Amino acid sequence: MDAISVIRAKRDGHPLSDGQIDWVVDAYTRGDVADEQMSALAMAILLNGMSRAEIARWTAAMIASGERMDFSPLSRPTADKHSTGGVGDKITLPLAPLVAACGAAVPQLSGRGLGHTGGTLDKLESIAGWRASLSTPEMLGILESGGAVICAAGESLAPADKKLYALRDVTGTVESIPLIASSIMSKKIAEGTGSLVLDVKVGSGAFMKNLEDARELAATMVGLGTDHGVRTVALLTDMSTPLGLTAGNALEVRESLHVLAGGGPKDVVDLTLALAREMLDAAGLPDADPAKALADGSAMDHWRRMISAQGGDPDAPLPLAREQHMIPAPASGTLTRLDAYAVGVAAWRLGAGRARKEDPVQAGAGIELHAKPGEEITEGQPLLTLHTDTPERFDYALAALTDAYDIGALTTAPPPVILDRIA
Amino acid sequence: MDAISVIRAKRDGHPLSDGQIDWVVDAYTRGDVADEQMSALAMAILLNGMSRAEIARWTAAMIASGERMDFSPLSRPTADKHSTGGVGDKITLPLAPLVAACGAAVPQLSGRGLGHTGGTLDKLESIAGWRASLSTPEMLGILESGGAVICAAGESLAPADKKLYALRDVTGTVESIPLIASSIMSKKIAEGTGSLVLDVKVGSGAFMKNLEDARELAATMVGLGTDHGVRTVALLTDMSTPLGLTAGNALEVRESLHVLAGGGPKDVVDLTLALAREMLDAAGLPDADPAKALADGSAMDHWRRMISAQGGDPDAPLPLAREQHMIPAPASGTLTRLDAYAVGVAAWRLGAGRARKEDPVQAGAGIELHAKPGEEITEGQPLLTLHTDTPERFDYALAALTDAYDIGALTTAPPPVILDRIA
Repeated sequence: MDAISVIRAKRDGHPLSDGQIDWVVDAYTRGDVADEQMSALAMAILLNGMSRAEIARWTAAMIASGERMDFSPLSRPTADKHSTGGVGDKITLPLAPLVAACGAAVPQLSGRGLGHTGGTLDKLESIAGWRASLSTPEMLGILESGGAVICAAGESLAPADKKLYALRDVTGTVESIPLIASSIMSKKIAEGTGSLVLDVKVGSGAFMKNLEDARELAATMVGLGTDHGVRTVALLTDMSTPLGLTAGNALEVRESLHVLAGGGPKDVVDLTLALAREMLDAAGLPDADPAKALADGSAMDHWRRMISAQGGDPDAPLPLAREQHMIPAPASGTLTRLDAYAVGVAAWRLGAGRARKEDPVQAGAGIELHAKPGEEITEGQPLLTLHTDTPERFDYALAALTDAYDIGALTTAPPPVILDRIA
Repeated sequence: MDAISVIRAKRDGHPLSDGQIDWVVDAYTRGDVADEQMSALAMAILLNGMSRAEIARWTAAMIASGERMDFSPLSRPTADKHSTGGVGDKITLPLAPLVAACGAAVPQLSGRGLGHTGGTLDKLESIAGWRASLSTPEMLGILESGGAVICAAGESLAPADKKLYALRDVTGTVESIPLIASSIMSKKIAEGTGSLVLDVKVGSGAFMKNLEDARELAATMVGLGTDHGVRTVALLTDMSTPLGLTAGNALEVRESLHVLAGGGPKDVVDLTLALAREMLDAAGLPDADPAKALADGSAMDHWRRMISAQGGDPDAPLPLAREQHMIPAPASGTLTRLDAYAVGVAAWRLGAGRARKEDPVQAGAGIELHAKPGEEITEGQPLLTLHTDTPERFDYALAALTDAYDIGALTTAPPPVILDRIA
C-alpha cells in the first residue's frame, strides 16, 4: 500500500477500499503519510466525494486511531448534542444544565472558536475561575453528581481527526460533507455517548449555505451514528441571522442566564427546548418536562452546580468591554434582513474570536442586536451595539457590517428557527 | 493575499487571477506557501483545470522564479527538442549531433530517468568519462565550437518548477495537462532557445494514453512557446510499443551509434530525421539535409566531438550486463502487440531505471527486442533478451512481461511512428 495509489484512486473517481482507508488514516496518524499527501487526498475527496460506505469506514478508522470513552458506569442515561456552528449559538450553555435537570447525564466535549463562529469553551472562560480541562475521573464524577459537564476533549480521542482537522483548516479542504460528517461523528462516537442530537445550521452564518447540503450532511451523520449504536437525530435550524440578541463570549453567557432564569429571546428559548426534548427522548426520558425545569429554577440550579464544579464562580460579575459603539437604524420600517455571517465577522474583528489557534480572545467583545428580522424599527433607534476593549478595531468591524441589513417592507416572513428534522 | 483563498477559488471552479498566480508561485518558491497547501492547489488544478490564460500566467511566474539563459551571443541559430518521455526513447542521442552537423546550435538540457521511462543523462553516463554537469561558459563554448551539448539543467533555472515537480511526484498530481505543459515550457523558455520541437508521446508507455489528451497537451505547449517568442512545433508520436529495438542505458547508446553510422531500426531513423527537419526548419535552416549528414558521417563526427568535449571517450567499449536471459516466441505468427509500458517496467526492474532519485542505475541493464509489431516470428525464435548485473531480478522483470505481447493474425496495421503534427 502506498499514498500515491490511494490518492490516484480517489482522484480518478474510484471508491477507496476498506484496506486503503484503514491504511491511509493509520499511516497519516503515525506520520508515514505526509501532510502534503493527505491534503491532496482531502482535496480529491472534497471534489470527487465519498460513498456512504467509504464515509462509514473512514469514520471507523478515525475512531480506531485513539481511545474510546465509556459512560456505562453512570447511573443516568447519557445524552449529547452537537452543533455544526453558527453566530450567536450559545445553546449549549442553557441546554446542558436543563437536560441534566430532567434526569440525563450530559457530557459536552466542546471546542474553541476559529473564524467567524464562536466557541463554547471561550464563552465559559469569561466566567471567573472556570476551567475547561478535566481528567476523565473528574468528568465522570461531575456527571454522576451534577449531570452536566462542558469541557475540552482530551488528546487521546480520535487523534487522526485532530491532525486532519488542523490540516484541512489551512488547505481549503474544510467544506466537504464526507470530511465534516466523519470528523464530527468520529469524535462523538469515540466519546461513548448513548444518544446524540445534531443541530445542523443552514444559512449565511453556517458551513452549509443551503437546505439541500444541510440535509445531506444531517442524513450522513444520522446514518453514521445509527450504524455505531448511537441513537441519533438531527434538527436543521436557521442560521441566516444570529441566534438570539448577542454574539460574543460574556454577552452570550449573560443571554444564557436570562434563558435559565425563564426569560431570554424567543428563538433561543424555542431551540433550547426543542433540542432538550429531542435529547431526553433519545435518552429514554420522553416524559421529562424541560419547560417546567426552566420555569421552576431547577435548570438554573444545575447551571450553578456545573459552573462551581469546574472552579467557576456563578455569582462573579461578567466582564464588560471597555468601549461601546452604537449603530442607529438608518430608516424606519421592518428589519427584513440581518446577516449572520456579517455579524459573525464583525464580532470576530472586535476581538470575540481568533484568527489563529494561539490567539487570545476578549471576554467582553461582541455585538448586541436591538432588533431581529421581522420587527419594526424607527430611524435613529439603536440597531446594533458593538463592544470591544480595542476601539481602534471599530472601523474594521463596521466595514463588515456595511451590507449586513435591509430595512423596508416585509414581503416574506422570516424563516422559523427549526427548518426540518431528520431521524 | 493568502493561500487558502487561492486554493478555494480553484477548488470552486473559478479562474485564478494574474495576481493570485504570481503571488502563489512566488510565495511557494520562497517557502511562504507550505507544501500541503500547494499540493491541495495542484489537486484542484488537476481536477478543475486551468484556462489557456491561467496556464500562460502560471508558466510566466515559474520562469520569473529563476534566471534565464541567453544564447544570443552564439553565431549559430539555436534549436531545441523536448520529448515527454517514453520507453526506448534514445532519439536525443543521434538527433543533437545530427542537427549540429547541419548548422544549428543544439543546447539539450536533459534529465534523469524516474519510473519506467529512461533518462538521457543516465544513458550517456554509460560512456566512460562522460560528465553531465557543465558551467554556463563551458556550455556556450562547446555550442559555439561543436554545435551540440547534452547536459544537466542548472539549479537556477525555474526553481519553482523544480520544487513543484518533486511535490507532484509524491502527491498523485503529475497527470495534469496544465501542470505538465507549464513545467516543460517554463524550463524550455527559461533556457532561452530560439526554437523548439516537441515530441509528444501517445500510448501505453507515455503519460498521455490517448491521442485527444496528447493533442491538447501539444496545442497548449505550442501556444505557450509561441506567446514567448519561441518558434514551437509539436509532433505526436506513437508510444504503444518501444522505440527501436532496445530499452536500457548502454543498449540505447549502442543503437544510437548504429543510427549515426547510417543504419539502425527504421522507426528510430524515421523519427530522428523527422525531428531534425522540424528543428532545422524552426531554426531557419530549411535547406539543410539531415539524411545526407547521417550518410556522409558528419553527424557521427559531431557525436564524437560532443562526447569528447564533455570528457567522454567515444572509442571506449560500452558496458555489457553480466547476465542475459532470452525469452523465446511461444508460438509462430505475426507479433501483433508488444507493450511499451510493460517493457519499460521490466527494464526498470532489471536495473536500468531507479525508484528514488538517489538510486544508482546499471549501465548494462535493459531489454533487447528481436521483433517489432507487424513482423512474422517463429515459435522458439528469440523474442526478447533481458540484461542485468543482478540475475535475482529476472523473475521480477519477467512478471511485468506476462501479458506484454500477442502473437496471432494481424487485423490492423501497427500505427506509424508519427501520428500528427501541431504548429
